[in-house]
Amino acid sequence: MSASATADRLVFVPLGGSGEIGMNLNLYGYGPPGREKWIIVDLGVTFGDATTPGVEVIMPDPAFIAERADDLLGIVLTHAHEDHMGAVAALWPRLKAPVYATPFTAYLVRDRLEEAGLADQVVLREVPLNGHVSLGPFEIDLVTLTHSIPEPNGLLIDTPAGLVLHTGDWKIDPDPLIGEATDAQALRKAGERGILAMVCDSTNVLTEGEAGSELGVRDELIRLVGEQSGRVAIAAFASNVARLQSAVQAAEANGRSVCLVGRSMHRMIGAARHIGLFADARPFIDEEEAARLPRARVLYLCTGSQGEPRAALSRIAAGMHRHVKLSPGDTVLFSSRVIPGNEKAIFALQNQLASQGVAVIGEKDRHIHVSGHPCRDELRQMYAWARPHIAIPVHGERRHLIAHARLAREMQVAHGFAPRNGDMIALSQDGAELVDEVPAGRLYRDGSVLSPAEGGALRERKKLAFGGSVSIALAVNQAGQVVSGPEANLYGLPEPEQGFDAAVETLCEAAHNAVQAMPRHLRGDDRAIEDLVLRAVRRAAPPIWGKRPHVDVIVLPLD
Amino acid sequence: MSASATADRLVFVPLGGSGEIGMNLNLYGYGPPGREKWIIVDLGVTFGDATTPGVEVIMPDPAFIAERADDLLGIVLTHAHEDHMGAVAALWPRLKAPVYATPFTAYLVRDRLEEAGLADQVVLREVPLNGHVSLGPFEIDLVTLTHSIPEPNGLLIDTPAGLVLHTGDWKIDPDPLIGEATDAQALRKAGERGILAMVCDSTNVLTEGEAGSELGVRDELIRLVGEQSGRVAIAAFASNVARLQSAVQAAEANGRSVCLVGRSMHRMIGAARHIGLFADARPFIDEEEAARLPRARVLYLCTGSQGEPRAALSRIAAGMHRHVKLSPGDTVLFSSRVIPGNEKAIFALQNQLASQGVAVIGEKDRHIHVSGHPCRDELRQMYAWARPHIAIPVHGERRHLIAHARLAREMQVAHGFAPRNGDMIALSQDGAELVDEVPAGRLYRDGSVLSPAEGGALRERKKLAFGGSVSIALAVNQAGQVVSGPEANLYGLPEPEQGFDAAVETLCEAAHNAVQAMPRHLRGDDRAIEDLVLRAVRRAAPPIWGKRPHVDVIVLPLD
Repeated sequence: MSASATADRLVFVPLGGSGEIGMNLNLYGYGPPGREKWIIVDLGVTFGDATTPGVEVIMPDPAFIAERADDLLGIVLTHAHEDHMGAVAALWPRLKAPVYATPFTAYLVRDRLEEAGLADQVVLREVPLNGHVSLGPFEIDLVTLTHSIPEPNGLLIDTPAGLVLHTGDWKIDPDPLIGEATDAQALRKAGERGILAMVCDSTNVLTEGEAGSELGVRDELIRLVGEQSGRVAIAAFASNVARLQSAVQAAEANGRSVCLVGRSMHRMIGAARHIGLFADARPFIDEEEAARLPRARVLYLCTGSQGEPRAALSRIAAGMHRHVKLSPGDTVLFSSRVIPGNEKAIFALQNQLASQGVAVIGEKDRHIHVSGHPCRDELRQMYAWARPHIAIPVHGERRHLIAHARLAREMQVAHGFAPRNGDMIALSQDGAELVDEVPAGRLYRDGSVLSPAEGGALRERKKLAFGGSVSIALAVNQAGQVVSGPEANLYGLPEPEQGFDAAVETLCEAAHNAVQAMPRHLRGDDRAIEDLVLRAVRRAAPPIWGKRPHVDVIVLPLD
Repeated sequence: MSASATADRLVFVPLGGSGEIGMNLNLYGYGPPGREKWIIVDLGVTFGDATTPGVEVIMPDPAFIAERADDLLGIVLTHAHEDHMGAVAALWPRLKAPVYATPFTAYLVRDRLEEAGLADQVVLREVPLNGHVSLGPFEIDLVTLTHSIPEPNGLLIDTPAGLVLHTGDWKIDPDPLIGEATDAQALRKAGERGILAMVCDSTNVLTEGEAGSELGVRDELIRLVGEQSGRVAIAAFASNVARLQSAVQAAEANGRSVCLVGRSMHRMIGAARHIGLFADARPFIDEEEAARLPRARVLYLCTGSQGEPRAALSRIAAGMHRHVKLSPGDTVLFSSRVIPGNEKAIFALQNQLASQGVAVIGEKDRHIHVSGHPCRDELRQMYAWARPHIAIPVHGERRHLIAHARLAREMQVAHGFAPRNGDMIALSQDGAELVDEVPAGRLYRDGSVLSPAEGGALRERKKLAFGGSVSIALAVNQAGQVVSGPEANLYGLPEPEQGFDAAVETLCEAAHNAVQAMPRHLRGDDRAIEDLVLRAVRRAAPPIWGKRPHVDVIVLPLD
């Protein structure tokens, strides 16, 4: 127990990002228990996969803080990656607090808000790099770090209860190519003042050493493009603007013109120009012009490094891109990592390219990618600078957070806490204390509906995906006689040995018999009849298919 | 064109294994075109994943050879991995040819045939190691190689058209621990005689160097188990008997008793004992006894290294295993590779273990796994021994086969051909010529039904998985009036903004209106009415959910 149940306290609550990758949503609260003032740090999404059919976007359920929206002072975004800002447009209507971001991030958020028709309503405040935000008891200084996107900000959040360093995503890149190197002095100075808690990125805690510098990648890209005589396509995350710039330099150094392919490439270059980048670069050429140039004079910069089926590179590989074609002797450089879960899609894409005689070069073959997250040596360096009293690892799967907490102990940090989403952790000189557990679910964007993950629609669809479906309808009169039907439709079921017609007949017979054998007192009770039929058909299906389809019964009542 | 369209020729046809991982089925044919005598080499399966819901096992469609079963002389199995022999029981009834295998493989095939009730029908011939099989024009010598399972056999297939080396799966392990080292002399001798074509494993062609030896893994396991003070569980492929033996030695060297957990562990140890292995090992203890021993005295040998939900390790991690529990201070060693596509399942399992304070050590952390397939240096060595006239890379994805063909060219092989499943390739001194393309589909085991992949059931289920389903039924009389219904059921759809009831009402109204607006001439035509309703409901659904559910309509006719 805390010394006093009503004294002001500082709490940290991750609602997303602790225990899974992506969809970060962090809360800081200060005040008397139950009457805290809150800020949100980051508001991100993650993406669905084959295990979430029909759900492409997943975000943290903000219910806990939405219920306290009156006490929400602001939403501060550390940087512009989807897992840190992708949920702003969808969730802002439930939160309605001003949004703070540095120029590059603000540009991209504004773009999204315009798409969503929210640009007029949302108060979006652009904060300069290394700027300051005052939100009630929270005095926030931005500290420029290095990452794989322009303007990654760590937050020094000063409160009456002490100073918190919320790192956001970071690495230590001595040559980030865009932006300044990590502001070690600011971190060291904050460490000297005394950091109560550091809430820190855990992504690469299982990897020894350092992530490596963008400069090394640039040099290798220049070399590698120089070795090619056909067309070159570089697939990279559009948000990695330093990488895009390196690709542009690799093109220019080798007498190639750059053609952007894919919507988010154009979007990100727009954001980059907004902050003054690419001012000196030769203008990009469009796809039609690129198609007319000699092969050795073109470099395509493409989206789709993860094998996303609708992204540029997949469409090019499938021969479905209107203007961009690759042919034998051309080369695709995957200047990106393989995100776990995407292996099969990426390999399928690479197989398709290889089939066409296109050479594929990845990060395993040549040094054309570095991670944006800190490996163990960088984490050690950060702990040496910040020397926090408490370590709170976030931004990782469970095994990452636990390994990170262990590393922090090795770095002599007095207290550590590897939180789960929904843990409310009070931070004080006594350490980190779990004081509550609050709801921290997920929301699925399911078609146009934003619905709680536990709503069950996806679970039902997965059942359909495994078992297929049988629909059966019959009209029954008040005397309990089948007047029309049963008729049955099958969907998603393979043709069984006896054939489809015989299978349907078997199911209809089961339904018919169930009604005929119905006890007298159920006559006229459509629900009860439906239930009888349901059970009969459910019993009849497994012998036919060796599996349990979803069975849907409609009994139409007749006089 | 060949010199003569009726002269005897030797052809090779992969029906599985070329262009995807797993499910190997290779045909060799000899004779005049269209009247060849055939042998099958290997008959394997692959496993479904989240992209094939409801389909756990996938195998090559043997239709082409099944239609020629009268000319099929035999089925020769190179080794006992599922992707080489897992389809024997399911497909044998369509092929009905004798099966040839060495003792370890034969033991496991017999086991499967007994399960399938086929043991009495199938002629299963046990061939000794380095034995010989005569099948019409095919004189087959087995050559013991090394791999990750006992008794991996390469086949030297002599025919009137020349000698083929079919490698099966192999690596060059100087210390395989079980079985002899690669029979380099036999390979060199065959090379000196002159090998027309080598049909060869491509799995690791993208990896430089060598796969490494089981001996190194054994030493590391002994060391690593010695460092532990809690329970140790080693997860490995049960078929990697040398690895199991190493785990047993690591236990014995450290005063631990071994407990097998998981059905295939017991099955494989049975097969291993059949060929005389584990004769000197201390007896295994059962799960109940293991639970009573001090933690430092136990070593569990578990299935489930790929995160398979029903395998031993997943059940242990979920706390659902009856006798085996792990607790803080215990350690799980993943002595296995991460098979692409399984990352998320494996990481979820490791997260679960980490949450419970169980340490997780994998092949990235310590040297506790080596691949069973040849890396580039081993492939170079094999080409140096065999010096084939033609290289036919198989057993890999498209990008592997293409890279392998390139490597063979570097090794001065005169001809190369990276086949696709279904390619019929004539092999002669002139090289490899594509002479035909034959059907080479896939069969899905969908519940109890073995059905062609293109049958459409899975495609329908995926549609259900994305969109959910709407069932709607109504009774319509001959005058075209709706007499009962419409009633609609939803399944797999999230609750829309207006609520479920309003959504159902909207759909029913659309159906009702469609019938009311029906042209007079359609009265009594149930199919036409169904079609009208279908189109109306399909139009009404997307505005509600922003997606297209499957719509199922049943119109019940009434007088």
